[in-house]
Amino acid sequence: MNRIGIIANPQKPKAKETLKKLVSYLNRKRKSIILDEASARLIKRSQLRVRDNRAYQRCDLIIALGGDGTLLRTVRMLKGREVPILGVNLGGLGFLTEVTLGELYGTLSNVLAGRYRLEERMGLEATLYRGKKRITSSLALNDCVITKGVLSRLIRLDAFIGKEYLTTYAADGLIISTSTGSTAHSLSAGGPIVHPGIPAIILTPICPHTLSNRPLIVSGEEEIRIRIASPHPDVALTLDGQEVIKLRERDVIQIRKAPFKVRLIVPRKKSYYQILRKKLKWGGMT
Amino acid sequence: MNRIGIIANPQKPKAKETLKKLVSYLNRKRKSIILDEASARLIKRSQLRVRDNRAYQRCDLIIALGGDGTLLRTVRMLKGREVPILGVNLGGLGFLTEVTLGELYGTLSNVLAGRYRLEERMGLEATLYRGKKRITSSLALNDCVITKGVLSRLIRLDAFIGKEYLTTYAADGLIISTSTGSTAHSLSAGGPIVHPGIPAIILTPICPHTLSNRPLIVSGEEEIRIRIASPHPDVALTLDGQEVIKLRERDVIQIRKAPFKVRLIVPRKKSYYQILRKKLKWGGMT
Amino acid sequence: MNRIGIIANPQKPKAKETLKKLVSYLNRKRKSIILDEASARLIKRSQLRVRDNRAYQRCDLIIALGGDGTLLRTVRMLKGREVPILGVNLGGLGFLTEVTLGELYGTLSNVLAGRYRLEERMGLEATLYRGKKRITSSLALNDCVITKGVLSRLIRLDAFIGKEYLTTYAADGLIISTSTGSTAHSLSAGGPIVHPGIPAIILTPICPHTLSNRPLIVSGEEEIRIRIASPHPDVALTLDGQEVIKLRERDVIQIRKAPFKVRLIVPRKKSYYQILRKKLKWGGMT
Amino acid sequence: MNRIGIIANPQKPKAKETLKKLVSYLNRKRKSIILDEASARLIKRSQLRVRDNRAYQRCDLIIALGGDGTLLRTVRMLKGREVPILGVNLGGLGFLTEVTLGELYGTLSNVLAGRYRLEERMGLEATLYRGKKRITSSLALNDCVITKGVLSRLIRLDAFIGKEYLTTYAADGLIISTSTGSTAHSLSAGGPIVHPGIPAIILTPICPHTLSNRPLIVSGEEEIRIRIASPHPDVALTLDGQEVIKLRERDVIQIRKAPFKVRLIVPRKKSYYQILRKKLKWGGMT
Repeated sequence: MNRIGIIANPQKPKAKETLKKLVSYLNRKRKSIILDEASARLIKRSQLRVRDNRAYQRCDLIIALGGDGTLLRTVRMLKGREVPILGVNLGGLGFLTEVTLGELYGTLSNVLAGRYRLEERMGLEATLYRGKKRITSSLALNDCVITKGVLSRLIRLDAFIGKEYLTTYAADGLIISTSTGSTAHSLSAGGPIVHPGIPAIILTPICPHTLSNRPLIVSGEEEIRIRIASPHPDVALTLDGQEVIKLRERDVIQIRKAPFKVRLIVPRKKSYYQILRKKLKWGGMT
Repeated sequence: MNRIGIIANPQKPKAKETLKKLVSYLNRKRKSIILDEASARLIKRSQLRVRDNRAYQRCDLIIALGGDGTLLRTVRMLKGREVPILGVNLGGLGFLTEVTLGELYGTLSNVLAGRYRLEERMGLEATLYRGKKRITSSLALNDCVITKGVLSRLIRLDAFIGKEYLTTYAADGLIISTSTGSTAHSLSAGGPIVHPGIPAIILTPICPHTLSNRPLIVSGEEEIRIRIASPHPDVALTLDGQEVIKLRERDVIQIRKAPFKVRLIVPRKKSYYQILRKKLKWGGMT
Repeated sequence: MNRIGIIANPQKPKAKETLKKLVSYLNRKRKSIILDEASARLIKRSQLRVRDNRAYQRCDLIIALGGDGTLLRTVRMLKGREVPILGVNLGGLGFLTEVTLGELYGTLSNVLAGRYRLEERMGLEATLYRGKKRITSSLALNDCVITKGVLSRLIRLDAFIGKEYLTTYAADGLIISTSTGSTAHSLSAGGPIVHPGIPAIILTPICPHTLSNRPLIVSGEEEIRIRIASPHPDVALTLDGQEVIKLRERDVIQIRKAPFKVRLIVPRKKSYYQILRKKLKWGGMT
Repeated sequence: MNRIGIIANPQKPKAKETLKKLVSYLNRKRKSIILDEASARLIKRSQLRVRDNRAYQRCDLIIALGGDGTLLRTVRMLKGREVPILGVNLGGLGFLTEVTLGELYGTLSNVLAGRYRLEERMGLEATLYRGKKRITSSLALNDCVITKGVLSRLIRLDAFIGKEYLTTYAADGLIISTSTGSTAHSLSAGGPIVHPGIPAIILTPICPHTLSNRPLIVSGEEEIRIRIASPHPDVALTLDGQEVIKLRERDVIQIRKAPFKVRLIVPRKKSYYQILRKKLKWGGMT
């Protein structure tokens, strides 16, 4: 691992100091480092700045410094290149950024020595069709969320699983999530927690008008199609909470397993259930 | 009851025919009739058209022909005048429009003869403050809904009950509803069903980030204040699903009991629980 | 306030020490003290022991030392006598026992000096009818819960509000709760939080078979009747989690507002919303 | 398919007539038929009665006539023998008994001619350990449910996934379900719908005290262990709603994938989503 990319969220209070120390550490280890524009500016190291974010796709390792949002941005920049990502949380603890600041150098020295566990996560690929035309295609690690804007009332979405009609959701929106994303937006909409090792796709409606519309989990091999059925929509598709695509009536969004994996470096000792307990405050109320 | 206003939803399939027959019926009864512009155009009776919707405020009775949305529009036009409203549902059955098409003339002849039950419903008054300035004030019979637009991620809302701090919601939105509105948007967001006779205000978060944030019911005498706490909001306030007001960071929305009642004429024989069973399909799954 | 009763939960680790100190304190204040059998045995003060728990009904003040369960037991012993109760939580903080151990003597000295706030809470009276016979009647401050035993499958319960048929619940059980009890069993079954000042009755089904069966809130003036409709029931009624009454098919349980109030002494500075935030961990997950 | 077993629910109104006709039909096809005691008595054909239910384990096909409960009873009698089962619903439509009465002979003639689709479903094996002793082991196709009896308050259950501690549930109970069972008890407790083709195990708490305890889905390869942690339990384990095993404090229930599959014969044209829509009334409320 020689070529190491760093992506930081400059708005986090500890970003500047952490970034400086991390760059020094990697320099001492004689690693080649690249930084994105905002990170380079933050610590005034313009010579490390990449002109083109595609350079990250040629790294051996990327360190995402921030929160889960920073890691999702990293995944988005990789556009399917399976570069291992180490997520470091500058605040507390994230579902995707399991390494805390205090654990950074211990973990990193293990990683550089080749001692680490790699978790491969399934992503989603969403393709928008308008009439017979393929408009655009985009990726998500957590979720593809179709929501109404503030101006529209409930929206109607025809949903198909493979070639079969599922139902027409009348709702404020619909979340199509991976298992990894089950603890993100889907959870707050009433969805279940799905272990990220299960290759599944979760459909969780937001405020469904039909009270018996419950979250549905289908195989990760299924192709989901959602058709905007409302007459006057003010509707958008949001990928991982970061990329927003405006939709029109009769648009069809096809969602299926991405043709590559997202590779996360995870600490050896930390377990998924430990993170669940901590993040969801499962200590119990007494 | 001499001066009778009619407001119809011209998009309902049966609106035209029903409206024609209803106008003839009331003509035969020698009633004075007024129609809104769309209704007058629908049946080509421009001489019945009112130039100014404020004329409805001087009626003895208003018949709302359509669905619950039409009745909510009627309430909005009355701006607090306590004119009795008879809601007629042109489709199936509504929570606010309890009279079906088949029951229209039987009910109407009773109403004109003075045989009817009047239900008084509590409404809400929402006032928007920006800094020290009172920007606008508006009414709702069902609910005041604060939601994020498609461009923004979760929003933060500081909530106060009277002078006390309640909590800061991190959510997709917040519904502040009357008991009447408990079976509308709030129900699909996980809120309880509250009998419309209870003078209460219901706070139901939409997709709350904190999983223990449950719907909260406070007295109808309480004053609720919601402060937009998100840094870069794309947030709006929607009243009864009909009026949309754009909000900014630090805006404060004060919500309290409206200073008047909404008066609904309800059929003698129909009960709230009967409507619940029918609308919510409480027949059970076997 | 001269005659002071104390009821403690002897199983709480701090019960013995607290009880001893409290008795000394009240002795110094020259108060007349009574203790229940378990409490008297715990601190070996048999001369303070009452032979008959009915003596508590003649006290001027009762101090409940333990958790919410101890306070509910106290209410049960009072059988409707409106003696003020001061709930002291020996663990953390309770919805009914708002005074923590650290606040005990400060609060108590205020109370004995007449400086306190009294909150009156609505209770429920449940009466069991078998055929035309009135079998028994009992009280609850939090809730009346009808549940199936482990041997039976789902139970069917015909529910009536006043004279009207509501629905037939097919469920694992049904919780009929006061507003005070809304944060107890009902909350864990998906019920809303209802401010204890609202005189309401909440019906929350446990695992309803019909997915659209949501919690329902009716006026505290309503009379609820539940009829056991299952052919082979193994069903019981539990009051405040403390008293269990076995039920048979066709039994009818009538539930209505108790003919008296439960009077709780509450600290001046503590608010209901503060307790909600603390108990429900509304600090938010970040 | 020569040896055909039939198991009927004699309490269903149409059982007698259907059974008679079915036996005649199979006689005409010169099949060898066996009936359980209740079924044989119902149609007075004692010569077809099996002395020992183990005879069903040697059949080529079993027809379960009744509802989903009858099919679950059949699975229980097969004790792991992978005999194909045709579930016929004598009422409406079941998740496990997809063939309606009207479709019986059309489907059966196809099945006997070898034209059918076989769906293999994962079952669960629950083993009870008391101290170091293995007490008993039993099977479930839908779910293993641990619940408290009417006498006990909430129970505490330590849960482990594989070797890892998950959490301690403080709840009325816990449902451990297959994907097949996701539309049974788990759904009414708030669990998601999981396509039966996904080899997963679902943990759904009943009335969890900790409000953030949400349903959790883990791989079907995981071994779940639940330890009864309550001091004075009145707790039982129920398998598929049919077999009840009393539990004691410190008992450990190990739950894992059964070492065989349950083989269901399903009609060619019917889809899982069609059944969902019909059973869950997804037509929507308008």
